[in-house]
Amino acid sequence: MAGGAVAAGSVAGTARAAPLPIPPASQELGRPIPEAMYGMPSKYEAHVARRRTDVLKNRQNFSDWSFTPLQHQHGIVTPNGLFFERHHAGTPDIDPKTHRLAIHGMVKQPLVFTMDDLLRYPSVSRIHFLECSGNGLTDWLKPASTTVQQTHGLLSCAQWTGIPVSWLLDEAGMAPGAKWVAFEGADGSGHTRSMPMAKVLDDAMIVYAQNGEMLRPEQGYPLRLFVPGWEGNVSVKWLRRIKVSDEPWHFRSETARYTDPMPEGKWRQFSFVMECKSVITRPSGGMQLAGAGPHTIEGFAWSGSGRIRAVDVSTDGGRNWQEATLEEPVLDKCLTRFRLRWNWNGAPAVIQSRAVDSTGYVQPTVAEIQKARAITGFVQHHNGVQPWSVAASGEVKNAIPG
Amino acid sequence: MAGGAVAAGSVAGTARAAPLPIPPASQELGRPIPEAMYGMPSKYEAHVARRRTDVLKNRQNFSDWSFTPLQHQHGIVTPNGLFFERHHAGTPDIDPKTHRLAIHGMVKQPLVFTMDDLLRYPSVSRIHFLECSGNGLTDWLKPASTTVQQTHGLLSCAQWTGIPVSWLLDEAGMAPGAKWVAFEGADGSGHTRSMPMAKVLDDAMIVYAQNGEMLRPEQGYPLRLFVPGWEGNVSVKWLRRIKVSDEPWHFRSETARYTDPMPEGKWRQFSFVMECKSVITRPSGGMQLAGAGPHTIEGFAWSGSGRIRAVDVSTDGGRNWQEATLEEPVLDKCLTRFRLRWNWNGAPAVIQSRAVDSTGYVQPTVAEIQKARAITGFVQHHNGVQPWSVAASGEVKNAIPG
Repeated sequence: MAGGAVAAGSVAGTARAAPLPIPPASQELGRPIPEAMYGMPSKYEAHVARRRTDVLKNRQNFSDWSFTPLQHQHGIVTPNGLFFERHHAGTPDIDPKTHRLAIHGMVKQPLVFTMDDLLRYPSVSRIHFLECSGNGLTDWLKPASTTVQQTHGLLSCAQWTGIPVSWLLDEAGMAPGAKWVAFEGADGSGHTRSMPMAKVLDDAMIVYAQNGEMLRPEQGYPLRLFVPGWEGNVSVKWLRRIKVSDEPWHFRSETARYTDPMPEGKWRQFSFVMECKSVITRPSGGMQLAGAGPHTIEGFAWSGSGRIRAVDVSTDGGRNWQEATLEEPVLDKCLTRFRLRWNWNGAPAVIQSRAVDSTGYVQPTVAEIQKARAITGFVQHHNGVQPWSVAASGEVKNAIPG
Repeated sequence: MAGGAVAAGSVAGTARAAPLPIPPASQELGRPIPEAMYGMPSKYEAHVARRRTDVLKNRQNFSDWSFTPLQHQHGIVTPNGLFFERHHAGTPDIDPKTHRLAIHGMVKQPLVFTMDDLLRYPSVSRIHFLECSGNGLTDWLKPASTTVQQTHGLLSCAQWTGIPVSWLLDEAGMAPGAKWVAFEGADGSGHTRSMPMAKVLDDAMIVYAQNGEMLRPEQGYPLRLFVPGWEGNVSVKWLRRIKVSDEPWHFRSETARYTDPMPEGKWRQFSFVMECKSVITRPSGGMQLAGAGPHTIEGFAWSGSGRIRAVDVSTDGGRNWQEATLEEPVLDKCLTRFRLRWNWNGAPAVIQSRAVDSTGYVQPTVAEIQKARAITGFVQHHNGVQPWSVAASGEVKNAIPG
């Protein structure tokens, strides 16, 4: 941990004049331990919750989403209780004893698996981010959201445990010509997506556990698909069926949804990869800087194409950039923390970050995205640079440009 | 993920004869999303909880402990709701707005910090295990506990976020001759420990967050010490005071507790390091093997002295050993997962694991520990090999030898 002390030295405690009083907690007994317990956060942290949007209210509640409070996240792993949600027909509560996973279509031997069958395989655990393709869709051309929870909170990160899909396909045996795979959920929407075989065999996982425990109901309990680096809706939750084919299906979620408007009225289909992106979470919208002087700029960077190579930070609206420090571990398709010391002079400023991934791809500005795509309506795949303005008063606000 | 498919191929699903029925979850709407929520596990996982001991009941509940259900843990990170507890006077519920941390003693400038002061520093996050020195003390010379939750569950692992203690000591400025540091908690027991300066400056952290969110009350909210690789009680919770000196204090927890009996009536003091250890969690005590054939042996290995270099597994009571596969990431002073395929022939067997760390230290058997130490009463620092017996019926039982 060498090297930090000098940078930290400028934020000091207060000189101690007299002995500290003995606090109340030192003078009484605390809560004893019950026979069995699943613990919860302190009552003083009740403000840290995942929340519905304050901008784009749905007309009905059964196709909805909630956002992770990224401004309160420490480290790279999102606690399961704060992991963002997205579903199309509410969260089902499935009994694992009755749950089945079927594999059929262009396979030599159709198979059915119980949860016990799947739990007998050797497990594989990987730390990866998950991001909804709609993350940021309310804030393309003008600020609509106040906080980073609302602009970027359809993003979380976890350690996922399960088995490679390829193992199950190996058991079923693929027929000649098999090129696409469909995954269907057991929820009320029957959410279903097509995936090309190459990605399925590369790193797609059948997942039953997240951050050390079985999946939460809203994350697909008892079983989901997890596709590292791809848009969240492909990682089908409450997974009940895998079908192999020689071509994609063009499901509702591949035509009416999850497509991207392009210039000249065209639409882009199967835009799976969540491209390289970053955001400053501290300071971020809704926060208040205590005053001029030393501050720490911190945030997350991630890429669906690989590792984060570098993050640059600008404190003058994008004219000059400094390279931030990345915190280990820097993992493939995983949230990476960056950090830069900033000595704020008290004048109005605009701060923003720009990430580069291991393929050399550089996170674009919204203006750069506009050159390639049509920004109309609720546009998905917003990986543009997010500026925050800092007023002389210390007030931090969303400054996404029009 | 190459290489797994062959090994996995022997655990197959069931051939599918007819289409699967549409499950109830697919035919109805699920739970909508509330305005704000902190999520919880499925109702079908209620059996997964941290629990008090079923062997050694305290006569009063205010110096107590609860155990992590390691047999249900997936991956290396323990969910905060299942992280083991240990305290000497119950869990206090401290308001972070009123909490203060003082540094005094042999320093140039005594200082007091608020939580806001500490949160302004750049943060540091590290993944490390935490183990109570008393882990396993009921099961030295004969089996007393049934499950791995009770034999080894005073062990958990998390990503810890905070700042190096060295940064705060730098700010206070150490006086010449400063060699030891005392850390005091704000709980009803005023739990306090002495630590040598070299370890404090090496990697001890002031921690406010765990697994992405602020500490839970039972883990020291709002502030604790975290000492990587050392016995848990040194990582003082509810931290309120740091005092610097030229010698240790010999507190109650350094004389009446947390010392180790040695041959000829001597006692070992300041035995801080949790030495290299491992345990098989699947199959483990209380489980039932479904029958002869392919099984996966899985478990955890860890060392307070460094990384895990290798884990060997025996399925014949320690006569023959095979090297297990370690799962990435293999981190310093962190739980590491190991795994071995085992083709059980259905005859009674004894399975056990033995870890080696990056210093070359080999986990000992209880018999080997007995040669160096006196095993009488409630002896701490049990890092002996843990055997489980598998009966012809498939029943798995604690087989710690006498």
